[in-house]
Formats: sequence, C-alpha cells, structure tokens
Amino acid sequence: MATVTLWSDAQVEADPRIKDVFDDIRATRKSDFVNNFWRALANQPAVQERRWASLMEVMFATGALDPLTRELVYIAVSIANGCSYCVHSHTAAARAKGMSDAQYGDLLSVVAMASQTNALATALQVPVDQAFSAS
Amino acid sequence: MATVTLWSDAQVEADPRIKDVFDDIRATRKSDFVNNFWRALANQPAVQERRWASLMEVMFATGALDPLTRELVYIAVSIANGCSYCVHSHTAAARAKGMSDAQYGDLLSVVAMASQTNALATALQVPVDQAFSAS
Amino acid sequence: MATVTLWSDAQVEADPRIKDVFDDIRATRKSDFVNNFWRALANQPAVQERRWASLMEVMFATGALDPLTRELVYIAVSIANGCSYCVHSHTAAARAKGMSDAQYGDLLSVVAMASQTNALATALQVPVDQAFSAS
Amino acid sequence: MATVTLWSDAQVEADPRIKDVFDDIRATRKSDFVNNFWRALANQPAVQERRWASLMEVMFATGALDPLTRELVYIAVSIANGCSYCVHSHTAAARAKGMSDAQYGDLLSVVAMASQTNALATALQVPVDQAFSAS
Amino acid sequence: MATVTLWSDAQVEADPRIKDVFDDIRATRKSDFVNNFWRALANQPAVQERRWASLMEVMFATGALDPLTRELVYIAVSIANGCSYCVHSHTAAARAKGMSDAQYGDLLSVVAMASQTNALATALQVPVDQAFSAS
Amino acid sequence: MATVTLWSDAQVEADPRIKDVFDDIRATRKSDFVNNFWRALANQPAVQERRWASLMEVMFATGALDPLTRELVYIAVSIANGCSYCVHSHTAAARAKGMSDAQYGDLLSVVAMASQTNALATALQVPVDQAFSAS
Repeated sequence: MATVTLWSDAQVEADPRIKDVFDDIRATRKSDFVNNFWRALANQPAVQERRWASLMEVMFATGALDPLTRELVYIAVSIANGCSYCVHSHTAAARAKGMSDAQYGDLLSVVAMASQTNALATALQVPVDQAFSAS
Repeated sequence: MATVTLWSDAQVEADPRIKDVFDDIRATRKSDFVNNFWRALANQPAVQERRWASLMEVMFATGALDPLTRELVYIAVSIANGCSYCVHSHTAAARAKGMSDAQYGDLLSVVAMASQTNALATALQVPVDQAFSAS
Repeated sequence: MATVTLWSDAQVEADPRIKDVFDDIRATRKSDFVNNFWRALANQPAVQERRWASLMEVMFATGALDPLTRELVYIAVSIANGCSYCVHSHTAAARAKGMSDAQYGDLLSVVAMASQTNALATALQVPVDQAFSAS
Repeated sequence: MATVTLWSDAQVEADPRIKDVFDDIRATRKSDFVNNFWRALANQPAVQERRWASLMEVMFATGALDPLTRELVYIAVSIANGCSYCVHSHTAAARAKGMSDAQYGDLLSVVAMASQTNALATALQVPVDQAFSAS
Repeated sequence: MATVTLWSDAQVEADPRIKDVFDDIRATRKSDFVNNFWRALANQPAVQERRWASLMEVMFATGALDPLTRELVYIAVSIANGCSYCVHSHTAAARAKGMSDAQYGDLLSVVAMASQTNALATALQVPVDQAFSAS
Repeated sequence: MATVTLWSDAQVEADPRIKDVFDDIRATRKSDFVNNFWRALANQPAVQERRWASLMEVMFATGALDPLTRELVYIAVSIANGCSYCVHSHTAAARAKGMSDAQYGDLLSVVAMASQTNALATALQVPVDQAFSAS
C-alpha cells in the first residue's frame, strides 16, 4: 500500500524531468535498480529533485565522516523514528558499503542502550550538568 | 527540576552500594566528575547497577565499531528521541573522544537528512522493496 | 493483523450500541463505507462512543479553520507519530475534501522541512529566545 | 544551555559567510531580530546556508498552501516531535502571520484529537483499508 | 516560558466559565492547588472544558484498572512521548496515590526494557507472528 | 520482511549458544512456541543473551509491580514508540496473563488520554510547577 502510485519504468521514461533524476540515481549508484522511495516521490517532481540533490550532497560527497559511518547514523535515526521503509533501505545500503555482522551487532547494542538511557533520563527529568553546556 | 533528588557526594559516601558504582565510574573515566544522570539513578540502586554494567559493556569495551562512532550513533538516537539530557551529555562525550567540528557538521547533516526522508517515506507509506528484505 | 477482531456488518447489526454509532458515521459522511478503525474500536463501545463524539466535534463542526486545513494538520501529526493507518486514512480524507496535488506537494515539503529543523534545533539544544515566550 | 556557542552580532559581523546569511534573514523578514537557531547554526556554515536556502524556498515562496497554513503544519509537526524550540518559534511566527485565538484553539483541538486516534490505531494495529491505498 | 499566558487566580475569578472548571478541579482533588496546565489551557475555554471532562471520566471514575495503575500507564506514555511537563506532573500524582520507591523502580525498569526491545524489534523489522493476531 | 533472517528450529538446534537461550525461553514460558523476535535476534548471540537475561530479570522476577501491570506499562510504551511488533506481542502476553476486556478498555482510554494531554502540554510549553519537582 501507499498514499501515491509508484511510477513504473515506462512512466518514468515518458516524463523528462523524472527521467533525469532516475538517470542520475542509476549513474551515481552504478546500478539499474531504483527503489520504491523514488518511484513514490516521482509524483512530486519538485520535492524529488530537491531530495535527490541533498542526498547526493550529504551521503555521497567526501566528508569528515566516512560513508559507512553516515549510513550507521542514518539507520540509528530511522530506528528511533520508527520508519520501517528507511530501516530496511539503509540497513541494505550499509551492508552494500561493507557493514560486517559484528559492526551491525555493535550498532544494535548502542541503539538499544541509548534508547534505554534516553527513557531513564526523560523519566527522571535529570537536569543538564553545567559542564555539558557550550554556551 | 527532576522527579527525584540528586545525590550529593556526601550522600554517596554514606551508601556503600552507590559508592561502589561511583568509584567505578570515576576509575573507568579517569575523572572525578560524576554527572547528574548517576546522581539521579542513585535513588534506585538495582537499576543503577544494571545500567552501569551494560554501559561499560556497550560503550567502553573493545568492539567492531570504534568509541567515537558509537558516540555518534548514541547522539543520533538521542536527537531522534528528543532526550535533552542525553544530547547534551553525549555531544560532550563525543568531543572528549575527539569529534572535530567537521565531523559534527557531517553528523548534523546526516541526522537532518534522515529526519527528512523518514518523514517523506512515512508520509507516502512507501512499500518496502523486496530487494531490501533479508528473509 | 490486529490486536482485536474487526466487526463485520452482521456483527454490528446485532449490537444496538455499535449499530447506533455506525448509523451515525454513515449518515454524517453520506457514505455506506465504514473503515476498519471503527470496526476495531467496536470491541470497546465506551471508547468508541467517546471517540466518535469528539471526532464529530473537532473535525466536522464549523470552526475557525476550514475542514481541509484540519485534515492537513491531522496528516502532519500522523506522519510525525508514524501512524501508518492514520496517514493512509487522513490522506484519503484530505483528497476527498479537495486537496490538490500541488497542495499535497506543499504539505510534504513543509513536513519534511519541519522534521529537519526539529532535529537540528534538538541536536544543538538551542535555548528559546525570550521574544518567543508569551508568559 | 546549548551544545554549541550562540554567535553574537559582533562575531557574525566578522565572518563574511555568516554575515551574508544574517543579512538575508533580516532583509527577508524585514526585521533586525535574528533568533537563536541561526546563532547556533552559525558554527556550521555549510549546514546553515543549506537550511536557510531550503527554508526560503519552502516557507516564503508562493505556493499552493498559504503562509499561515504552512506555519500551522509546521507547529503540528514540532509538537508531535516534541521540539520545544520549534514549537515556541513557529507559534510566534504563526501569530505574526495572523493566527487568531480561535484558529489556535482549532489547531490545538485537531492536534490533540490526532494524537489520541494515532495512539488508538497503533494500539489496535488496525489494518489499512484497501480503499485508502493509491497503488 | 510558554506559548500562552498562565492565568492567575484573579483572572480565573473574573471569568465564570474558567472559574467553574477551576472550582471543579479543586473540589475533585480536594486541594486548593491548581497546576500550570490548567492555567495555560484557560486561554482556550472550549478545549479546557472538554479536557477536564474527559480526564475526570478516564482518571477519576471507577474502572477495571485501579487509580495507581492508570497513573503508571500515564507516566509510561509521557516518558515515551518525551513530555517533560507530563512526566513531572504524573510522577507527582502517582506518588500522591501511594506509589512506593520499589514500585517506581519497577516502573523505570519496565519502561527502560520496553524502550530497548522496541528499538531492537524496529531495527530488525521483525514480522509479527501469526499467533499474536486477533483477526 | 525483516533486515535479518529468522532462524528455524533446525538452525537453532545446530548452534549450542542459541539453543541454550531457546531452551531457557521454552522452559521459562512453559511453551514450545518461540516468537520471531528471538529468531531474528539469533543472528547476534551476544545481544540475544543480554536481552533474554534482562527480560527475565525485569518481566519474570517477583517485584513491587505484579506481572500484568508490567505488561500494561510495556504495551503503553510500545504504542507511544509505534513499535508494531511489540504492541502485538505484549498485548498477547497481557491477555495470557489475564487482562480482561474491561482492563484493556481502560488501558486504551488512559493511553489515548495521555497522548492527548502530552500533545497539549507540549503545544503550550507549560512550565513545570515547582510543586512537582523533587530536587
């Protein structure tokens, strides 16, 4: 199910604006497979273009964090936000970028630990220590 | 404010069970400073002992992810869960473990990007691609 | 799947209390279709009655915000809360009340933007400006 | 408190890249006041530039939804995400754009109603009706 | 800070509609103290009346769950939603209804455990067992 | 779908470390049925062992809250966190521990009420009353 239709390759071919983004996705990822997120966003070309441009900038550009670390952070956010699609797609992406089973186990342990202490700190309404403030 | 009292060093000294955990925290972190989270949890010795034992295992042990990466994941979860205390304490911890301004900028960019695509995937209720499923 | 059984029309007919609410839903919406939410809530007549009464008051009554704006706000909350059922049902409701594709695109853009700046403001723990406080 | 320092006007003046964004914010809003969000983001010029560019595009451009409706959606998301700063700043922004007390009351009612039915639909794990799916 | 003004007792006295609700709160709780939540909601009399009526029905009426259990559930939801005000007020309410330190410790343990397994089940995207479905 | 494979009984039998946990689960619950959560976690033996040990300690041990109350709190957290799997499994567990339809109705009412007032308190950014603070 979805709140919008998912664009088939034939529909994408017939719309130059969407086709451009799809061509770019395929070239950037060096793969013919384009996942449902982009097929759903195709209904909103302006949103789609902005999203793909940002994603390239944030996830594919060279930066201070390596690509796998960025995926781990992405998965962590997606779990905490309960986004089923994003957990699936970025866990697959992390594996494609070399995440080992041991690294995945560590990720799960840290996410579980953080979820737990988040709940406890919120439950106790612990006041922030002055030492942790930068301003 | 808090839902419990925060234990002073004098109170900690007077209770052997709590004192043991505080001694261990100070020794492990090689610092005299013990933050409010532990001073709040001191009201519940059993919860405190379990939490500290797990934290040592997950955050201080050698693992497949290096200590800074674990802190970045921890911060990401804490932001998504909206835990003010945890964001403050683990951002400070990440800096203590060497997080640079550029790395922090990357972290913020990925968290912001993930929050945005999480919202869009949820808004569109995008069905998970078969390719992303491991089972 | 569900944690309760979904009431069929035959079951509804046989229970006067539930039948009354279903009759009212059909009359108010001028449609025979009653969605699964009400078929699930039928297991708890008191909760169902209170929910339907409030919904009529908040979503169908004349107010300061027009019906479509109320649906847009409803969708926004449902996305942020990650409620799959509610996103689906209220996106359909918004369309039934005239939401255009362009309006839906704007909604998605604002929700995505807000999700992102929410994450950044929480990440940076920005203190609230005095100018924003009403008290 | 905050995880970063908040830039004073003097610091902003001394950094051309940040000064450009601040000048643009002041010109766009026709006001000298620049709120803490931008003073915190100033520590990360690249993140700040991208954020301000997107915000202008999404919140200030002409679109299918009027500016006040966009602010109401923004507030709704911020409440559901529990972002204290964003709730404060966008409630103030909505008032500046003409939100009446009656409209605010309606907004609160819809957000409260949605939060409640979100919880019930999730509690009962209601399956999505086929009629609500677009694909 | 707040997005609305908090009504003083003098302001309440001068407005019969609000005064009625405050009188009822004081009589029901057998206490003169009226907390800030109601002083903030006083700006929206219709929302306030509906909220107080529902709260009386759900939290003060005789039901299948005893009053303390209802408060524990209330605290649990408030922690998971990250509502600082609600965590504070309902932890105080639970104590007023007899919550012992040992019960509070158990509550914290269950909330922490649930937060952790919630994260893991979401991370792994575990499919629901057929045995758990009621329909 | 899932991000990992679900272990069959044959796979479990072949791995002594996982078999030990499964044997313990079956013995503790006095049932042959082992649900998908543990079949998914089997991919990470260290995480699995820690999780089962904690669960036993928190959910099966004698404590200040009775087993059904702990399940109600667990369900409440899982609803607020939007964990579909956990809502299903712990609603089933609560029923197995004797939760009546009337108790379930009360639980739903309190969770719905709390979700609503959480949203309102966050929307209004109500300052915490001094009377609610323990420190």
